[in-house]
Amino acid sequence: MIIALDAMGGDHGPKESVKGAEKALQAFPDLEILLIGNEAEIKKYQTVTERMTIIHTDEVITGEDEPVRAVRRKKNASMVLAAQSVKDNKADACISAGNTGALMAAGLFVVGRIKGIDRPALSPTLPTVDGKGFVLLDVGANADAKPEHLYQYGLMGSVYAEKVRNIEKPRVGLLNIGTEEKKGNELAKAAFDLLKEADFNFIGNVEARELLNGVADVVVTDGFTGNMVLKTTEGTAGALFKMMKEAMTADLKSKLAAAVLKPALKELKSQLDYSEYGGAGLFGLKAPVIKAHGSSDANAFYNAIRQARIMVEHRVTDTIHEAINQA
Amino acid sequence: MIIALDAMGGDHGPKESVKGAEKALQAFPDLEILLIGNEAEIKKYQTVTERMTIIHTDEVITGEDEPVRAVRRKKNASMVLAAQSVKDNKADACISAGNTGALMAAGLFVVGRIKGIDRPALSPTLPTVDGKGFVLLDVGANADAKPEHLYQYGLMGSVYAEKVRNIEKPRVGLLNIGTEEKKGNELAKAAFDLLKEADFNFIGNVEARELLNGVADVVVTDGFTGNMVLKTTEGTAGALFKMMKEAMTADLKSKLAAAVLKPALKELKSQLDYSEYGGAGLFGLKAPVIKAHGSSDANAFYNAIRQARIMVEHRVTDTIHEAINQA
Repeated sequence: MIIALDAMGGDHGPKESVKGAEKALQAFPDLEILLIGNEAEIKKYQTVTERMTIIHTDEVITGEDEPVRAVRRKKNASMVLAAQSVKDNKADACISAGNTGALMAAGLFVVGRIKGIDRPALSPTLPTVDGKGFVLLDVGANADAKPEHLYQYGLMGSVYAEKVRNIEKPRVGLLNIGTEEKKGNELAKAAFDLLKEADFNFIGNVEARELLNGVADVVVTDGFTGNMVLKTTEGTAGALFKMMKEAMTADLKSKLAAAVLKPALKELKSQLDYSEYGGAGLFGLKAPVIKAHGSSDANAFYNAIRQARIMVEHRVTDTIHEAINQA
Repeated sequence: MIIALDAMGGDHGPKESVKGAEKALQAFPDLEILLIGNEAEIKKYQTVTERMTIIHTDEVITGEDEPVRAVRRKKNASMVLAAQSVKDNKADACISAGNTGALMAAGLFVVGRIKGIDRPALSPTLPTVDGKGFVLLDVGANADAKPEHLYQYGLMGSVYAEKVRNIEKPRVGLLNIGTEEKKGNELAKAAFDLLKEADFNFIGNVEARELLNGVADVVVTDGFTGNMVLKTTEGTAGALFKMMKEAMTADLKSKLAAAVLKPALKELKSQLDYSEYGGAGLFGLKAPVIKAHGSSDANAFYNAIRQARIMVEHRVTDTIHEAINQA
């Protein structure tokens, strides 16, 4: 199995991506990595060469680039070459921690959609209190959505949760403002009618307040709403940790008490660290394309590679293709 | 000034509403309260009778009632009578901690809309890290919205923030998935175009991640998205506090350390307690109608009364009426 990794994406340049790749090579003897980016930069951090091939390029898509234009014009950008290697069957999946919009564009234009899926969906796994997590989609691949897209998101999320996260009959919920059937905006009401006829395990509406309590394994919504929920979760957790830190360093007594609690609170924070679950899959493409978090460290890259590997091994894209054709 | 209070709404029955009313009467010598509900129940908790008039009724709208039907059929319900007293000029504003949907229906059908405002908006003030808070609207009075509704939400929120929260030129932001002008779904893009021509202080798009950092004084969005943001904030904070509590009671050492930090953490929690800012105003009606939180205690009722009082005193509804006519 070969996985293409955009070595230049993310906040830390190739340092963390190379370390993550090496960790993955050590863990998975069947794995080969295509590392795409500035060869000299990569070699600064590279310690093994076995099963690791560097494809050199100087071109990079930055966070400031307009996504669609960048993918069209910067044909030799590390991210675009990673997608191209999948398209050319030189890799089975690709990963980047770079510009999210550009990766979505590269996925759509270079890798291409699964026939029968209208829109790809950006699909991270978010943490829950019980540590099991849930897949939320879409979080912004498409700001607007139609009811049939939400149905397709449910199908793709269900396949992913079953194949990759090993959940039997994953519970698929529709994000809504109440649990009753007739609740919601026009989109949610129409999506409910489609979802209740689905072959997968649709459990009805779920409320945002219950998400972190693990109310469903897969939660579907339009990209605008999903993005809001994702960022509100991040923002609230960030604000709380900030306030807590201030409270805990207010005086010496507090600092001493905080020191005692530090390991437990660190553990709590890592429980909420969603890079443990890998990156956000861009579901609906002909091969696994994974968006790692911009701030990914070596471990986050490792987890994204592990996730891509399972997606390939368990034929997630083929299964989605088969399921949508049957539906 | 006379404020009508539905004594039966909320999780605690008349116990907390009566206590809150008495606290408000003590604080504001110009205030009179109409307490509407079961007289025998109310009298159990009532300790003063001056400036407090009980209007007895046995009928109550519960959380299980279908809102519109309940308001139409239960014409003597405490909540409906509270709205009716405003309609009949027997009170200047009304407050209920009962069924949110029913209060919105009572507001719309009994109190009535301000001419020029198409849709009322449910508008709570949410906490921020700096303790100043921001008004979020709509959080669910209308699941769907059109661009002109978002414009009207901005206008109403701005008047409220200025008159009641005493903020000069309140910063009005449009909730969106990015800060750049062309970002968002169709609704957000069209709303941006309307908002940038507004007379109030529109500052552009704001992201969900920044809300608790006080990025704007007023944030407008459709009711579906607003509801998601509100409930995600509540859910995330609730889950974190739960996990923190577990971490802090894991063993004796942790418990002792936690005891030292308890006052600071309690302070933190109260900083996030949005009942301090009063209830959620139902903006766009001919008189102030306020939805107090279902779990309101005496202090939350007191704050809702205080808020209604400022809205009346500063002629918020008249000012909204004037501003929408000028626009």
